[in-house]
Amino acid sequence: MTAVYEDVQLRLARVYLLRVAEPPAPALSAFVAEHGPVTAARRVRAGDVPSPVVRETEARRGYDDMASDLERAGAVGVRLIVPEDAEWPTWPMLSLQVASGRGVTGMAPPLALWVRGQGRLDECCERAVTVVGARAATGYGEHTAAEWSYTLAGDGVTVFSGAAYGIDAGAHRGALAAGGRTVAVLGCGIDAGYPAGHDAMFRRIAEGGLVVSEYPAGLPPARHRFLVRNRLLAALSAGTVVVEAGARSGARNTAHLAATLGKEVMAVPGPITSRTSLGCHEMIRSGQATLAGSAEEVAETVGRIGVDLAHEQAATSRPTDRLSENARRVHDALDTRAGKPVDQLAAESGVPAHSVRGVLCELELDGYSARCESGWLRGDA
Amino acid sequence: MTAVYEDVQLRLARVYLLRVAEPPAPALSAFVAEHGPVTAARRVRAGDVPSPVVRETEARRGYDDMASDLERAGAVGVRLIVPEDAEWPTWPMLSLQVASGRGVTGMAPPLALWVRGQGRLDECCERAVTVVGARAATGYGEHTAAEWSYTLAGDGVTVFSGAAYGIDAGAHRGALAAGGRTVAVLGCGIDAGYPAGHDAMFRRIAEGGLVVSEYPAGLPPARHRFLVRNRLLAALSAGTVVVEAGARSGARNTAHLAATLGKEVMAVPGPITSRTSLGCHEMIRSGQATLAGSAEEVAETVGRIGVDLAHEQAATSRPTDRLSENARRVHDALDTRAGKPVDQLAAESGVPAHSVRGVLCELELDGYSARCESGWLRGDA
Repeated sequence: MTAVYEDVQLRLARVYLLRVAEPPAPALSAFVAEHGPVTAARRVRAGDVPSPVVRETEARRGYDDMASDLERAGAVGVRLIVPEDAEWPTWPMLSLQVASGRGVTGMAPPLALWVRGQGRLDECCERAVTVVGARAATGYGEHTAAEWSYTLAGDGVTVFSGAAYGIDAGAHRGALAAGGRTVAVLGCGIDAGYPAGHDAMFRRIAEGGLVVSEYPAGLPPARHRFLVRNRLLAALSAGTVVVEAGARSGARNTAHLAATLGKEVMAVPGPITSRTSLGCHEMIRSGQATLAGSAEEVAETVGRIGVDLAHEQAATSRPTDRLSENARRVHDALDTRAGKPVDQLAAESGVPAHSVRGVLCELELDGYSARCESGWLRGDA
Repeated sequence: MTAVYEDVQLRLARVYLLRVAEPPAPALSAFVAEHGPVTAARRVRAGDVPSPVVRETEARRGYDDMASDLERAGAVGVRLIVPEDAEWPTWPMLSLQVASGRGVTGMAPPLALWVRGQGRLDECCERAVTVVGARAATGYGEHTAAEWSYTLAGDGVTVFSGAAYGIDAGAHRGALAAGGRTVAVLGCGIDAGYPAGHDAMFRRIAEGGLVVSEYPAGLPPARHRFLVRNRLLAALSAGTVVVEAGARSGARNTAHLAATLGKEVMAVPGPITSRTSLGCHEMIRSGQATLAGSAEEVAETVGRIGVDLAHEQAATSRPTDRLSENARRVHDALDTRAGKPVDQLAAESGVPAHSVRGVLCELELDGYSARCESGWLRGDA
């Protein structure tokens, strides 16, 4: 078997796996992680899988049109990114996997992603902020989303959003106006033509950034797909800003997921007389979000990791005592001020590098570790 | 000596003491608390006082026009309230005294107060909120101050404010429009005619509420007097709401003093594009204030005491271990859910009632106790 042949088999398997279960599919995801995509796909098709995987896959396991899926995608400029690609954003996806493994519902990472655009997904995630909010936004909200995204994107931060009308569109357009990078994550197929009228915007996004979806071409949007999509918006950036949100709002769902993943959550205040600021005010009042008054404050909050953690306190009892042996060794190797790369942590802790990665994500969810530009810092929860 | 004669002597002494030192006068205040006003006034006049009291009083100790001060005040409907009166708001003033005794600068309680109006000061303080903000307010801010004060005053809450243009005037007018009670605390003599154009508002305030000042008749306003006045706005209510404030603002000073006294501090959000909301956003972002989005939230926050405290945690070490013997006994007698009056606490703790009061205020400053309608609750900081 040639490398090319292997790569094709891998991609066909991933396309099949994306089709065969409605995301998120935690049992299938774990099964693929254990057996690899090619074996997993073969066994799913044969029905030779544990019953939780059967339940997720039985309705569509006969699907057999993967080659033409890839062909049709290629014809409209859409490509598949798989976890085996260098471009795959390993760290953000690992945090989804860890959260899912801990039993947080709906957090299973995607099995692959369809993307259109010139950006590299891993690079887009390096310095990224998610800007979301109400579709029925006010001029104030749209203006704020656009202005802040302009400033952030102009500073090299990638602006993630959901491509909806209102705040999302303001965020993408602001980033584009700055000549910056923006990523739209969809809850339907990339070519589903949704929302109507955003085609030109999608084309411009794809010039320097990406349009991303885990749904196959042509799949129509649905409410539950937006909610499933939201975990990607939450996971792929360092923090989520809610610009305007009513009392009930999908943007609050994204913010909640971001908080669950240990990310920064911010909300923009507005006039108390504005219904679309109500949700933001509730989030701030209840402590679910910090108040963001400017793009600079967003950048500061997202970039703050390591500063707050520097206040290491002399604790009489160590809450880290309850960690596993490997986790404690990695935690001991971390420093509160100087970030260390994984290799160094592996060398210093004596824990194998491939285990160090998972341990770091586990630690991060509890606030015991934090990412920074040079690697990982120690947190003390 | 008749009771009437004694009362006159007391009042003349307090008028003298108010005149003789520029408030706040911590050394004089402590000297009066120790020796009583009549003896203290006689000894100040004679120069027979410790040197800190000399420093506070030497410039004016020859003052001798108290009788005509009282007469002139009476002629324009102004009366003197002294700590010996039933109307004196004992608890709020005690918290100032305790803070001052702990060395917090500028917190010494007033030696007496000039007031005009039909309200009883102690009753006005029972359910009270302070509403303050920028003089150069926007229509949004003035409208919010007026609307919320209308709602609060309509619910029987007294609205305290500083009678300035902008937010303060909005607060007083809103309370008046509801037919409710409002109290203006001034940084100049009650009849100083400041701010210009507020005479009619002062007359309306006096119909059901009070205009209050510790400064003698005719004394002109000055910047430092507003700051000194702010401790009264902070101390006489259960919480302070800042409606609009620029980056530098006197209202933030009042909020800071309220926080120092263990009171609730709230701020109203506004458009991020409004300079007069900047200070409010900073206070919320930094955790100095909670976000208030409606009058109902203000009422809830101010009335919340006891609810949050109900989350009593099983602590392995007791931070109250460092309290004095009396404080620990009173703290042990407190309950987290059922408020108890002072007499009951005295009986249960075995600490004399007159000591229980001071101890409760000490505990309150550290979050170990909290007032409620039926008396005092336990807090666990």
